[in-house]
Amino acid sequence: MKQIKGNFVPQALNNTSSLPAVSASRPLRVALFGFGTVGSSVARILLESHPAGLELSHIFNRNVARKRVDWVPDSVVWTENAEDVLQASSSNGGPDVIVELAGGLDPAGNWVRTALANGKSVVTANKKLIAYHGLELEAQAAAQGLHLLYGAAVAGGIPVIPGLEHGLAGDRVDRVEGILNGTCNFILSKMQEGGDYAETLAEAQQLGYAEADPTEDVAGYDARAKLSILTRLALRAQIHPEEIPTRSITDVSAIDFSYARDLNCTVRQIARAGRIDGELAAVVGPMLVPLSSPLAWSRGTENMVVTTGHYGGDVVFSGHGAGGHPTAVAVVSDLVGLAQGSCRIALPSTPAKVSTELEVPHYIRFTVSDRPGIVAAIAGALARENINLNAILQRPGFPLDRLPFVITVEPCRTSALQRALKEIARLPALLEPPLDMQILEK
Amino acid sequence: MKQIKGNFVPQALNNTSSLPAVSASRPLRVALFGFGTVGSSVARILLESHPAGLELSHIFNRNVARKRVDWVPDSVVWTENAEDVLQASSSNGGPDVIVELAGGLDPAGNWVRTALANGKSVVTANKKLIAYHGLELEAQAAAQGLHLLYGAAVAGGIPVIPGLEHGLAGDRVDRVEGILNGTCNFILSKMQEGGDYAETLAEAQQLGYAEADPTEDVAGYDARAKLSILTRLALRAQIHPEEIPTRSITDVSAIDFSYARDLNCTVRQIARAGRIDGELAAVVGPMLVPLSSPLAWSRGTENMVVTTGHYGGDVVFSGHGAGGHPTAVAVVSDLVGLAQGSCRIALPSTPAKVSTELEVPHYIRFTVSDRPGIVAAIAGALARENINLNAILQRPGFPLDRLPFVITVEPCRTSALQRALKEIARLPALLEPPLDMQILEK
Repeated sequence: MKQIKGNFVPQALNNTSSLPAVSASRPLRVALFGFGTVGSSVARILLESHPAGLELSHIFNRNVARKRVDWVPDSVVWTENAEDVLQASSSNGGPDVIVELAGGLDPAGNWVRTALANGKSVVTANKKLIAYHGLELEAQAAAQGLHLLYGAAVAGGIPVIPGLEHGLAGDRVDRVEGILNGTCNFILSKMQEGGDYAETLAEAQQLGYAEADPTEDVAGYDARAKLSILTRLALRAQIHPEEIPTRSITDVSAIDFSYARDLNCTVRQIARAGRIDGELAAVVGPMLVPLSSPLAWSRGTENMVVTTGHYGGDVVFSGHGAGGHPTAVAVVSDLVGLAQGSCRIALPSTPAKVSTELEVPHYIRFTVSDRPGIVAAIAGALARENINLNAILQRPGFPLDRLPFVITVEPCRTSALQRALKEIARLPALLEPPLDMQILEK
Repeated sequence: MKQIKGNFVPQALNNTSSLPAVSASRPLRVALFGFGTVGSSVARILLESHPAGLELSHIFNRNVARKRVDWVPDSVVWTENAEDVLQASSSNGGPDVIVELAGGLDPAGNWVRTALANGKSVVTANKKLIAYHGLELEAQAAAQGLHLLYGAAVAGGIPVIPGLEHGLAGDRVDRVEGILNGTCNFILSKMQEGGDYAETLAEAQQLGYAEADPTEDVAGYDARAKLSILTRLALRAQIHPEEIPTRSITDVSAIDFSYARDLNCTVRQIARAGRIDGELAAVVGPMLVPLSSPLAWSRGTENMVVTTGHYGGDVVFSGHGAGGHPTAVAVVSDLVGLAQGSCRIALPSTPAKVSTELEVPHYIRFTVSDRPGIVAAIAGALARENINLNAILQRPGFPLDRLPFVITVEPCRTSALQRALKEIARLPALLEPPLDMQILEK
């Protein structure tokens, strides 16, 4: 990211980007770090489409013998030694760009730092690294006149980051809402068609859409990392991912879809952030989404992002957020941009604190052993916090000793609701803690 | 557009974009050509958001006295003399960038040529100019190391062009389908809720969504200009807008929505282009859209574009395609890019011929004076061209002397269908020519 401060030289006076080449003209040499699903897709696209100005030169992976494939030409250097590639001078056959696809903070972070320190630009799909260390790494890149591109880090093959940078830089985005995790969306959109959480998770695992340990996805950690990146680019606010209140989807059950439908809604894992009364709100978790909202259209592993601009209104981006090929498209697009000397648009951002106070309507599901006075006790606890009930839904056919019913409440402050729910959770009739979910407004 | 041929200098060796400024550092001076809805929105955003590196310096319009507003600072020069602004040297207070918002080929084309000839980059929202003369103007800009940006020319505030250039450059897009004209979408989505064409058009005119003479929009000329731009950027194929077969929406009537619903479809003006068996197909007109398709979600004046990539699959962009503020967002985003020295990604394209032969399923509505043997005659004419019937729909309740009924046919070649329809149109029972519409496959 080019960090530009103060005045700019008018482009018409400073056509450096169209100056004739002064140094040796040759394609950019690209080193892939990681030859898994995404890495091999990037190699495939580079070798099949051979975009101008790019040459696959190195592939780093552990256990190269196991990874080597016959469709990669002999000119490509396979290696298990990261440092050699990172430190090889580009004037001596070393790569010009590192594509970091290992994921996680470590050792990926050190590879990126070493690459930049050795004069190599970096393209990465690593949302966690960018969410946690993006600012520092961008500053390092800018200080050396290098580039750090991560169009693939959010929503994979959907050009949300390029869209924000190049198409919405002229707006003031006030809100961003998205379905940023394909695993959760697969599970919840399958549950919408019937099926409970455990069996749907098992199906997702069998199809390769969920990890053996699905925590990172279902608990919302993956989505909150992506949301913190979107918040910086769209709302121009720097927040730490771990400051974003995050709820797991594991407590959502079939009955919630049934009650949601009565409210003309469905349930999705939503990541949302917005400026409300000068404060920055951000949250990740399962929420009720009106069936009329674009967010309810998403199926399977699709991702979707809806931005709301002060001037331009709503813009919807959707498509395949994950998978080898879609993610690789974003990586190769970044590489094409590098080869053509395009740069990212600097969207200046400032540090912000995440407000935990939101004023939104809620869906609350109680599971009780039915006895007289329960609704009165719950309603009383809500009333003491000045929370207005909107609807009480109770379907017939459940056993009285394990009865799920739902109350929806009008917009109320998070702290007030949490106090009320804490009191309600103490009622002896409650068999499990109440499940509360925000209801998105259409 | 930077035209880059042959090899590239590796970015790491050629960090011209991060060289320190050698000339005077000052914001880019921006001249607005046209102070209508979009122009005044651009001025508002520049003055309210004051994006770094940009300064509104000139406003050109006819009859300045009528246009002048008090919220534009005195430093801005208002003028009725286009040539003065276009030729004023930027080293002598003249603008660095011209924002052309007059629309149409003339005089806008000459303004753009003169601006480029005088060393000024150009940002425009003019789809017609770009569709008809974009290549020539881009070559002129590139030859002088200048920029011609037109992110606002297709789908206004929706970052489709930036998304294609910066986010999908790494894919090979095989198909693009879109709702590119807000006027038609307003009319057709209103007709979907009930209401006939004439009264809905009148409502659109009253709301300012349709011109007094709506031909440009309803006949599809506006959409085909935009489609030719998308075809170049997405499919990398240069086609002349007038080569795109275009049908008007004026013949669509309430009964078509009724029959479409029986087929789980609705009707929209669709612009689509794709590579089919090595040929390039492109077409604009009213079509049947499955209710399950994202294209059926669009309401009112919304625009939507769906691209299908060989690697990344479908990507959907939607939002407000027209209107002052959304279009202005795209214009200001281009200006921000210019100020930051970013450039467009060159997506190399080659001339292509539009194939008029498509093999797609069709909906055909006949309006007849009912008499024995009509269906047999129509079915016979279709059979002689080897066209398979799929469904025959005839709702009760219509007068027998003016009976609308529908036949859907399985995918068949355009030429065969047109021959059959020509023969059918000669049948004495036909009260008006058959209306045929493509049926989009989900």
